[in-house]
Amino acid sequence: MPEAYLVGAGQSDFGSFPDESYRSLFRTAYENAIDSVPNGLDPDLIDEAVIGTLGVGGRQLGLSGPAVTEHLGLHGIPCTRVENACAAGGYAVRQAAMAVKSGLADVVLAGGVEIMTDVSGDSVRFWLGVSGETEWERLSGTTFAGVYAQMARAHMDQYDTTTEQLSRVAVKNHSNGADNPHAQLGFECSLEDAENAPTVASPLNLYHCCPTSDGAACALIVSEDVVEQFTDEPIRIAGVGAASDSVGLFQRETYTSIPASQQAGADAYAMAGIEPTAVDFAEVHDCFEIAELLAYEDLGFCEPGDGGAMIDRGETARDGTLPVNTSGGLKSKGHPIGATGTGQVVEVFKQLTGAAGDRQLESPTYGLTHNVGGSGGAAVVHIFERERSTAGDRR
Amino acid sequence: MPEAYLVGAGQSDFGSFPDESYRSLFRTAYENAIDSVPNGLDPDLIDEAVIGTLGVGGRQLGLSGPAVTEHLGLHGIPCTRVENACAAGGYAVRQAAMAVKSGLADVVLAGGVEIMTDVSGDSVRFWLGVSGETEWERLSGTTFAGVYAQMARAHMDQYDTTTEQLSRVAVKNHSNGADNPHAQLGFECSLEDAENAPTVASPLNLYHCCPTSDGAACALIVSEDVVEQFTDEPIRIAGVGAASDSVGLFQRETYTSIPASQQAGADAYAMAGIEPTAVDFAEVHDCFEIAELLAYEDLGFCEPGDGGAMIDRGETARDGTLPVNTSGGLKSKGHPIGATGTGQVVEVFKQLTGAAGDRQLESPTYGLTHNVGGSGGAAVVHIFERERSTAGDRR
Repeated sequence: MPEAYLVGAGQSDFGSFPDESYRSLFRTAYENAIDSVPNGLDPDLIDEAVIGTLGVGGRQLGLSGPAVTEHLGLHGIPCTRVENACAAGGYAVRQAAMAVKSGLADVVLAGGVEIMTDVSGDSVRFWLGVSGETEWERLSGTTFAGVYAQMARAHMDQYDTTTEQLSRVAVKNHSNGADNPHAQLGFECSLEDAENAPTVASPLNLYHCCPTSDGAACALIVSEDVVEQFTDEPIRIAGVGAASDSVGLFQRETYTSIPASQQAGADAYAMAGIEPTAVDFAEVHDCFEIAELLAYEDLGFCEPGDGGAMIDRGETARDGTLPVNTSGGLKSKGHPIGATGTGQVVEVFKQLTGAAGDRQLESPTYGLTHNVGGSGGAAVVHIFERERSTAGDRR
Repeated sequence: MPEAYLVGAGQSDFGSFPDESYRSLFRTAYENAIDSVPNGLDPDLIDEAVIGTLGVGGRQLGLSGPAVTEHLGLHGIPCTRVENACAAGGYAVRQAAMAVKSGLADVVLAGGVEIMTDVSGDSVRFWLGVSGETEWERLSGTTFAGVYAQMARAHMDQYDTTTEQLSRVAVKNHSNGADNPHAQLGFECSLEDAENAPTVASPLNLYHCCPTSDGAACALIVSEDVVEQFTDEPIRIAGVGAASDSVGLFQRETYTSIPASQQAGADAYAMAGIEPTAVDFAEVHDCFEIAELLAYEDLGFCEPGDGGAMIDRGETARDGTLPVNTSGGLKSKGHPIGATGTGQVVEVFKQLTGAAGDRQLESPTYGLTHNVGGSGGAAVVHIFERERSTAGDRR
């Protein structure tokens, strides 16, 4: 199977931008991605684009992929919109890797974008709700916070997980986000702040929930035939895993794990030929802070039920053994649905190329991204490997 | 590059089905596709799914791919929704071919589905309009018929094309659709009927416009490693081409051709290593009958401006030199947005396997599908080749 490589990634700020459009936000992300390519990249070489979005807040529900690329001046290239709710961006990266591996493309733009703070027609609750199961969840009044609250409560019942542990995830992620200039909520919070926030959907409070965000993020994925034009130290997409599940939480056998994450992770590890212990850092899908604890368990970073203890021990802090969400995660950096998965890749690219500034880790080799759609109806995991060997030694 | 093969395809009836859901329609198409595989196909072998839909009438805007596959019992497999407006289904087929060629999948379900006759929240005009350019077309009141009417008028001005020629396309396609039991408007119409229908958007009248449709269609795409399990006479996806363009018609340099179709066609011919003259029959995107004439020209079936003369000469009739839309096309068979591209593949599969019943062509080898998103913001062309050689002689 031909290899695919990550040679650039960039994002817009995540936040609330009433003066921006989905196109202008995407252009910022795209230009930052182009600028990040070590040896430069002529946009005329881009021969395919994949755009992840839930629906840019209702602005352009059809042809939203080409609507983005035409604004970039990428005329004529095949462009496909992909949607898997909050995992749209992660699946855009996967499709880009497939396009390269298939031999049908050499230089692929994988992007994601969302407008959530100013939505047309309906409320943001509608636009979030459409990613859940329609008939038995959304139309019966269940919100996304409500769905994850059920998962949190089940985890507490089964494993004695505490709200304080959820709060510790928020404290860690805000601490990281405070060092990320693109973060929407780039400020630190204390454990006391996080513990005493108003309830959103019990047991989840405000600090256990990510914000509503506008933003865009892009990654540039290339084939092994051309990678040496763009960088001397390639980042290989060593593992790709994806899985689906029932869209509605109520139809799953378990509320205390996300089976699609487990499967996607297992497949990505198998393809990369590594164990979870080899991962140096990870960006995981903490739309609600219980989701980060589930990710620790589902991705094999700890045993089932030990997620709470793992955050207590500080293992996933920036100075821990396995830093998680050094970007600030969805909680602090923000969660512009379609841009979240590609945004995770931006952090991995920065960490693996030494461009993460004040939050830089020491020489990581393997970075993992984990992106979830809905409450687990879809999940996608990528493992990126910084290749440090000299030319000629590439596998 | 590894090869991809088409081993099965099936569709639901296209029409207005108030008692059906997008899931039940899709299940019918899926079961027909499974049943069509010459040597049978165990659904447990399906390891990837790609679902094309504009948004199933607003019923499930997020995770609409997994919402379909969970209903089929295809638990856990990677499933991605793709959207490129009316070309969503064609792009689903392309993504399926990419998945197989990439080595990441062996047996892929490429499906499409749409509900258009009973839409939630907004009107069908809204759901059609979202595939057009939002800011300068839809919100200023331009309908899809209005956009194609501008193209028809420009073609008439430049090439002396007549409304009678548009009507002849309708007469031909209804004649074909009358022999297709799945067709929504499966009746013949006379040239007089077609000429005297009420105006929709001048110069287009009712018979120059396809209907509003519900429906689903599926194709099964497999890798060269496994194809021999499923059939003794494989259908190879010999050519794939795709291109994008400005979403808004008003931003294009020409109104008398669809540049994305030209590019997609040229790329598909190049990959297949054939000239347009080698095509034995084609399913083209006649959302409005002017679009079929544009397709003749854009796909190289005739010179620019000669589309009208081509229909006059009867060359694209079922007994002509290059039969087009033997299924009835979008005009007679129906146009359930996301299902249209996969529906075209169903007709090609039937014709290439001798299963087209009363509309069967004589031993065709090359069948082409041409699927357009919006007014040409995206286009995708596939060339399918029936391999008649004996085993061991496959390329």
